Amino acid sequence: MAGPGDDCALTRVRPGWLLVSKVDQLVEGVHFSDVFRPEEIGHKALAVALSDLAAAGAIPRWILVALSLPPWVDDRFLSGIARGMSRLAHESQVKLVGGNLSRAELLSLTVTALGEARPAHALRRSGARAGHELLVTGTLGDAALGLRLLTAGRPTRLTKAARAQLAPNPRVEVGKLAGRYAAAGIDLSDGLLQDLGHLCERSRLGAELELAALPLSPELRRLAPQAARELALIGGEDYELLFAVPPDAAGPFRRAAARKGVALTRIGRLRRAAGIRLLDEEGVEVPLPAAGGWDHFRPAT
Amino acid sequence: MAGPGDDCALTRVRPGWLLVSKVDQLVEGVHFSDVFRPEEIGHKALAVALSDLAAAGAIPRWILVALSLPPWVDDRFLSGIARGMSRLAHESQVKLVGGNLSRAELLSLTVTALGEARPAHALRRSGARAGHELLVTGTLGDAALGLRLLTAGRPTRLTKAARAQLAPNPRVEVGKLAGRYAAAGIDLSDGLLQDLGHLCERSRLGAELELAALPLSPELRRLAPQAARELALIGGEDYELLFAVPPDAAGPFRRAAARKGVALTRIGRLRRAAGIRLLDEEGVEVPLPAAGGWDHFRPAT
Repeated sequence: MAGPGDDCALTRVRPGWLLVSKVDQLVEGVHFSDVFRPEEIGHKALAVALSDLAAAGAIPRWILVALSLPPWVDDRFLSGIARGMSRLAHESQVKLVGGNLSRAELLSLTVTALGEARPAHALRRSGARAGHELLVTGTLGDAALGLRLLTAGRPTRLTKAARAQLAPNPRVEVGKLAGRYAAAGIDLSDGLLQDLGHLCERSRLGAELELAALPLSPELRRLAPQAARELALIGGEDYELLFAVPPDAAGPFRRAAARKGVALTRIGRLRRAAGIRLLDEEGVEVPLPAAGGWDHFRPAT
Repeated sequence: MAGPGDDCALTRVRPGWLLVSKVDQLVEGVHFSDVFRPEEIGHKALAVALSDLAAAGAIPRWILVALSLPPWVDDRFLSGIARGMSRLAHESQVKLVGGNLSRAELLSLTVTALGEARPAHALRRSGARAGHELLVTGTLGDAALGLRLLTAGRPTRLTKAARAQLAPNPRVEVGKLAGRYAAAGIDLSDGLLQDLGHLCERSRLGAELELAALPLSPELRRLAPQAARELALIGGEDYELLFAVPPDAAGPFRRAAARKGVALTRIGRLRRAAGIRLLDEEGVEVPLPAAGGWDHFRPAT
């Protein structure tokens, strides 16, 4: 890992491509706790930043990492962080080009991810249109379930949900494809309803979600249906990707993602009328979850 | 300032130019104290990052900023930070393209600075050759003197040295010129001897410094000569730029910098033999300051 005071990185963006950049920060006690192993902390800090680039349809290329290290972080712990981050960087074909180490009271990791996108393929949240389908990668609610499972401490054997919380997999490969098919994208860090709300707001649209269509893992399906749906709707940190896709592109996009081993599920569509509507199996509207902070997703009355 | 969860930034690097990137972090209690006004904290966090880009001969273009905010930071304080940073960003013609806010126990500011450089003009620390002249911008030791002055608290009227500590001016305009004249560059964050040591190490060279040539401000000249020289040699945080320049380019570089209002002073030269030698007015070698941590600048014996 590059130390403080190193040279600036000199890199080359492909001619005609856009530079895509995003900064994300993970702070001890806020974004991770002492059930996390150092490898998982390093992995997650990078995963969060790569997930944003994937939602923008970008190919990740370079990262710069600033670490704030409290006195309790010893060499072994720091090596663990570096190992977790390096492994994911290698898998995702990104190169660490800059670093900074500071002393601090709390451990924090700030990752700036830099990538490239063809101008015609770069996705923003504002690109969606009424009638576009909503497609989501993977399954929803696992990371939030994992967070609950881990409150009691780290079990000797981790379930998939616990792993989704500890070491989320950014959807880098789907992100690389997405620009060819999707019109807008966002990653699910704050929970489906909230992040869909961001996308709707920026695209000046509303949405309909089909509750029966929400992709749930077997582990989530073992919960009461109401509890599982709430986790899927408002549980955060899934780092799955949500795309708005023109209807005729949805099938080809799903097949292209499937070839990369990732399921894309249609969970609803965008519409002109403001607000997010939840529909049950019969197409009947059901109330939004009562969790705090959802008021701004309801249509203005 | 962009909030958490914003879109990725999409920007365009000029065709054929390199992307130059650097991350720097300022942490409360380490890099700034409670004598700093919020405007100065915001200014300094950006100045430190821009200084690195200037040393690389780059034109700064974009910044991404991650802030960790402890509970005591209120809206007014945060606005002050933003104001100080925005003012310098505007002066330096850089655009804030990404941000992240996190809760934390200590205030910290992580700035990723992105710029552009022509491939032939990008400077590294490793580009110096024996016989190159050492040119430095501005004056040395002021920020370290300022730090001492401020330990007693913030006076009602700040001296220039105190201002150099609180709100250093990154040498952005000289950085933009530097690639046409210099062969290597570094910014003086850790003190002249230490940063020159980095440049020597990376270029596999040694250096001679002429003590009488060190540019000192009138405020520093009022100290005992020995004390003034020590501050100039080992005082950190000047954020002046040190360049290795081929002898025939030194004059034109000095004139070009003078047209931008910045004095470049010749303080010595690089040589093949390892180690840094200090020479007095008669050219007689004098010992390096006895401050800790300098051993690795001495030639191996």
